[in-house]
Amino acid sequence: MIHPTKEVSIAVIGAGGVGSVFLQQLAYVASRRRSPEIRLVYVAIIDKALYHADYQHIEIATALSALEAKGGPLPSISQTVEYLSRAPGKAIVVDNTSSQQIAEAYPQFLRHGFSVVTPNKKGFSGSWSLWQEIFDAEGTDGSMIYHECSVGAALPIIGPLKRLIETGDEITRVEGVFSGTMSYLFNNFAPTQGSGGKWSDEVKKAKELGYTEPDPRDDLNGLDVARKVTIVARLAGLAIESPTSFPVQSLIPKELEGVTSGEEFLQRLSEFDAQMEEHKATAAKDGKVVRFVGRVDVASKQAKVGLESFEKSHPIASLKGSDNIISIYTKRYGDLPLIVQGAGAGAAVTAMGVLGDVLKVLERIR
Amino acid sequence: MIHPTKEVSIAVIGAGGVGSVFLQQLAYVASRRRSPEIRLVYVAIIDKALYHADYQHIEIATALSALEAKGGPLPSISQTVEYLSRAPGKAIVVDNTSSQQIAEAYPQFLRHGFSVVTPNKKGFSGSWSLWQEIFDAEGTDGSMIYHECSVGAALPIIGPLKRLIETGDEITRVEGVFSGTMSYLFNNFAPTQGSGGKWSDEVKKAKELGYTEPDPRDDLNGLDVARKVTIVARLAGLAIESPTSFPVQSLIPKELEGVTSGEEFLQRLSEFDAQMEEHKATAAKDGKVVRFVGRVDVASKQAKVGLESFEKSHPIASLKGSDNIISIYTKRYGDLPLIVQGAGAGAAVTAMGVLGDVLKVLERIR
Repeated sequence: MIHPTKEVSIAVIGAGGVGSVFLQQLAYVASRRRSPEIRLVYVAIIDKALYHADYQHIEIATALSALEAKGGPLPSISQTVEYLSRAPGKAIVVDNTSSQQIAEAYPQFLRHGFSVVTPNKKGFSGSWSLWQEIFDAEGTDGSMIYHECSVGAALPIIGPLKRLIETGDEITRVEGVFSGTMSYLFNNFAPTQGSGGKWSDEVKKAKELGYTEPDPRDDLNGLDVARKVTIVARLAGLAIESPTSFPVQSLIPKELEGVTSGEEFLQRLSEFDAQMEEHKATAAKDGKVVRFVGRVDVASKQAKVGLESFEKSHPIASLKGSDNIISIYTKRYGDLPLIVQGAGAGAAVTAMGVLGDVLKVLERIR
Repeated sequence: MIHPTKEVSIAVIGAGGVGSVFLQQLAYVASRRRSPEIRLVYVAIIDKALYHADYQHIEIATALSALEAKGGPLPSISQTVEYLSRAPGKAIVVDNTSSQQIAEAYPQFLRHGFSVVTPNKKGFSGSWSLWQEIFDAEGTDGSMIYHECSVGAALPIIGPLKRLIETGDEITRVEGVFSGTMSYLFNNFAPTQGSGGKWSDEVKKAKELGYTEPDPRDDLNGLDVARKVTIVARLAGLAIESPTSFPVQSLIPKELEGVTSGEEFLQRLSEFDAQMEEHKATAAKDGKVVRFVGRVDVASKQAKVGLESFEKSHPIASLKGSDNIISIYTKRYGDLPLIVQGAGAGAAVTAMGVLGDVLKVLERIR
């Protein structure tokens, strides 16, 4: 006997690059699925929310313009929880922000039986206690949490990693290029063929192309990679305390750490090109190229992030564009790892990964 | 409110390399999972089956020795269906054989509400009408079918492909090395560094290492790759009639097609080394290497299997060991594909992939 849930209530928080594309893609899927029926009951941005006391369905395709036109003040987290706990059917909270505050509410959402789907890294790469709280709360009244896009966007990494472990395999090592920005910078600065550009020029070019954060130092400090490595390491079984509790190499020259504006930083970066040139030259002496890599070694319980040299034929060396690559070594896979490679950023693929996670919840929801 | 299914009845057919390891892995998982409880109610090999009229649980860890000691004659498919339709809870049929006959029973299983999990390619790469019958039957009374391991063993290929399409992405092209045997042969015959061995020697070595079928012609005829390409092409939206309805290059020299035994074939293969040497030389003239590749082009609705040349820096060229590599090009991923690479054969990883599919069914079952 099947007892299909008639309806599922969805709350979508965040309408930036990923959030707005997600809503478009959700509209497509909702128009084609029969059961459970998707009822969008809440949509919010940083200072505004749209929702109805009677849980009236918000048309997904036009939700953002409706929010713009008719949105009211943002309710508190507990008001949101209160609202969603009476919504028709089970509730799913989709967090398309990068907010620490919302990440800290996941345990509360999960304890109320709401499932959580998010590309937001903060909940999984912050304190170890938040991680524990989240996964302790998961399962209450059937609540689920999926965060495939917190590492490598829609690339199948977190799902397969969890599944490997669940079937009894052991992760021994994970290594990879976890940042699209770093990938782009090093593929152009130290290509496998030709000599590549000057470091500061590549950083400026990447910024112009929109491949960096507004302030490129937010990429160059290595924290984004450290956060992803934290997530992968924890999934592999290591109790990593925080993304700053293991060695992370920053590519911000010490002398420029105190510089206030991103513009000034970019202007002065060329003064330090010689440092990066030296890394490139050292690698080149052995016929190698330098890359910015994250690494987890389960046996020695160590994680680290920083520059490493690779043979030109190595998959990490021959990466293209701004692709990510993640190599997962396990007991069953042996010497040659499971490798997943492709775009690890971008609104369309990230939104698709989030939507894929929502579909997993819809399939499992009772 | 959650209504957990108390029990799920599982029938496991086949106890070869994959089947026996699958049972070991299932025993591990069953000992750690609470709900739904796994009840092994049927286990069978080609000429023998063990099952009890009262659906008594068969101890998973010792099921094969119990089958050996106490198994009776194999029931017919309809007797099996009859038996399983009264089993406690929902039923899952795990087909670890490569049997055409069992594959043809999938529609019947699915129509009775049994879910099907299998690495057997036959059901998905045979006639188009069987494919249609299977997916028409899926969903009856909540039945599901998962066959991740029919392409690339546990590598995440079929799941992600289906999910991409479900979220509204469009597959434009798929290319890859789909056979571990072919991968091993060409990585050694035409390596990116060095000159490689003689073709017939590499085939003999691969057979000695157990990398080929008992008769290597079953690999060299290209049909195994054609079957996997058929599956991928159908998932991508092409109504491929059969694995012989598109161009498939056989590496069996015409003169040896009539040879009766695999031994004689291997003895005489060296007479034809010049043919393969020529393919290698032609590729080498452009600085390339030759590989045996499957390819699907959705726009032109074409599939093909055969020799192609690749730049040495291409991921297909730099593959190692007997790894598979599958590159999926989609509208959202753009110019650079989603690439999955790793072991695409072997009992441990294949069993793990089958078990992963069983876990998906257990999560979704109501």
